[in-house]
Amino acid sequence: MSRVSLDELERLAVAALRRAGASDLQAQATAAALVRADAAGLPSHGVSRVPMYVAHLKHGRVDGNAEPAAHSARASAVLVDARCGFAFAACNLAISEAMERARETGVGVAAVTNSHHFGAAALPLEAVARAGMVGLAMGNSPAAMPAWGGRRPLFGTNPIAAAFPRCGHAPVVIDLSLSEVARGKIMVAAKQGTPIPLGWALDEAGQPTTDAQAALRGSMLPAGGVKGAMLALMVELLVTSLAGAQFGAEADSFFEDAGNRPRIGQLFLVLDPGAFAGSQVFADRVEALLDAMLGDEGTRLPGARRETAQVEAAASGVDVPEVLWRDLQSLAGQEVGAQL
Amino acid sequence: MSRVSLDELERLAVAALRRAGASDLQAQATAAALVRADAAGLPSHGVSRVPMYVAHLKHGRVDGNAEPAAHSARASAVLVDARCGFAFAACNLAISEAMERARETGVGVAAVTNSHHFGAAALPLEAVARAGMVGLAMGNSPAAMPAWGGRRPLFGTNPIAAAFPRCGHAPVVIDLSLSEVARGKIMVAAKQGTPIPLGWALDEAGQPTTDAQAALRGSMLPAGGVKGAMLALMVELLVTSLAGAQFGAEADSFFEDAGNRPRIGQLFLVLDPGAFAGSQVFADRVEALLDAMLGDEGTRLPGARRETAQVEAAASGVDVPEVLWRDLQSLAGQEVGAQL
Repeated sequence: MSRVSLDELERLAVAALRRAGASDLQAQATAAALVRADAAGLPSHGVSRVPMYVAHLKHGRVDGNAEPAAHSARASAVLVDARCGFAFAACNLAISEAMERARETGVGVAAVTNSHHFGAAALPLEAVARAGMVGLAMGNSPAAMPAWGGRRPLFGTNPIAAAFPRCGHAPVVIDLSLSEVARGKIMVAAKQGTPIPLGWALDEAGQPTTDAQAALRGSMLPAGGVKGAMLALMVELLVTSLAGAQFGAEADSFFEDAGNRPRIGQLFLVLDPGAFAGSQVFADRVEALLDAMLGDEGTRLPGARRETAQVEAAASGVDVPEVLWRDLQSLAGQEVGAQL
Repeated sequence: MSRVSLDELERLAVAALRRAGASDLQAQATAAALVRADAAGLPSHGVSRVPMYVAHLKHGRVDGNAEPAAHSARASAVLVDARCGFAFAACNLAISEAMERARETGVGVAAVTNSHHFGAAALPLEAVARAGMVGLAMGNSPAAMPAWGGRRPLFGTNPIAAAFPRCGHAPVVIDLSLSEVARGKIMVAAKQGTPIPLGWALDEAGQPTTDAQAALRGSMLPAGGVKGAMLALMVELLVTSLAGAQFGAEADSFFEDAGNRPRIGQLFLVLDPGAFAGSQVFADRVEALLDAMLGDEGTRLPGARRETAQVEAAASGVDVPEVLWRDLQSLAGQEVGAQL
């Protein structure tokens, strides 16, 4: 492991993406989002993705010069076209548009199409919570789970995230994929060559497996059985039908260097508490529920672990595995060896 | 079992609620919603609830003369005060307000406070889908499940529902509670004195149980473990904090005749596809996803079973258990015996 400062990590990630043909806009938005994931203690959605993203640029799966565009036909609704760039610049635009509309009308919804992997779903919601508003995010991803009763992967692991602001505290952050575990965890295990627990996934033949590589070729199991499968259908419909985005089953795996432009979708909802019962009522209710929750021994605040990780990472950087560290330096075109 | 026409069932339910002190508005909205649930094949949310509702009227847990009121501070947001009446008149108002706002701004969100049991969460969305729009619904309910890691029931089973319109077909309807099973199923088993499967619930001491009565006194298990628990927290926060509604843990059980006014919350979101990529793109994407899904043997359309049940019920009525049938007639103040 190398301990690396967030600035250094972001600089390297920008350099690697720029060198592979990404514009400043695309490289900076992408690197910033990945480093935020590392800082939040979510390395499977962090700079560990840079080699994959670079490969996607090189194979034309991403347009490194795409400039996302927002179209709005009505006061509370926005359609953002990521134009086959990385997801992050488009998601930033979607969030800022949805927030502006929520300030005006109480609610803003932005649907993103022609998009790509958007990483940790809750991270774009941090800006929403900082502005005192409630944010919801969801997205699809290359097919990983069958519909209920089916055998073929059809839906992505389709994350749902929410952020609720608090006065004087980090927001409550909920972020979950609808598979029994996040696909990123299986990817990390596959890279490290470690086995996965039974119950996470099926292999290509539909049999339970502990082999992470076999799991990546097979299908993931939905959390909660039929309920996770129904929620995955709901997310898949919400993020594709409004935006005109591709289904997970139409997008080639992110884990292949070559393949199509995934053109998948994301959806962001922003709600201004001031437009309902008011910001004070909102703040009081949130604190009262958290008090009740934390009064029961054994519970913890969702998002608290992220907050702690972020504070620590900002102060002293994050640990980066040696292999990834060398890869990043090499992709950024700099001499291997430098570190914090 | 007695076979009863929907009209007769609704007439009896209205009479029973009126006789217990409900206004025409409250009795009619409530009876219509309950009968729609019976017609959709969801008897646990149907007229089987009339005896409980009558008891709530008699014990002052519901104000039978409440007139729900809508307040809107901004173009896409509405706060509906159910004023401690039954939920249904308030939910009807919320849906019609949210639809009107979605037609204007692309999105409408209505938060309901001071509410009561809202039954099958997807049923209010039928009107949304008929108008060619996407509807989402969620609500809380008296505490049934602990927070993740906790021991005391804190969250309701907190249903999430969605309806997606189709051209020339019944909508896709997704409707699930976040417990391993709906509490209504345990209530039905308790009434019938039949055991429940292990894994549905814990008893008061936190031990797995097959005794439905013990389960009603204990706590329900969340679907998908930590994921169901996190979604339950998300729904609980969404439906209480924006509206200023009470938590499930602040509401006395619906299954007790005496108790407080639950004052719980519901949230409805309406999205107009015409405000995003357009209605034609929307329709094409929905059909393409359903085709892909149904092409995998063993899958079925969520909502199809409801649609079939509704058609059959409209033509030939529904089966009502003998005990309930006599109860309803007695509560309605009519001579016991008459039937279809």
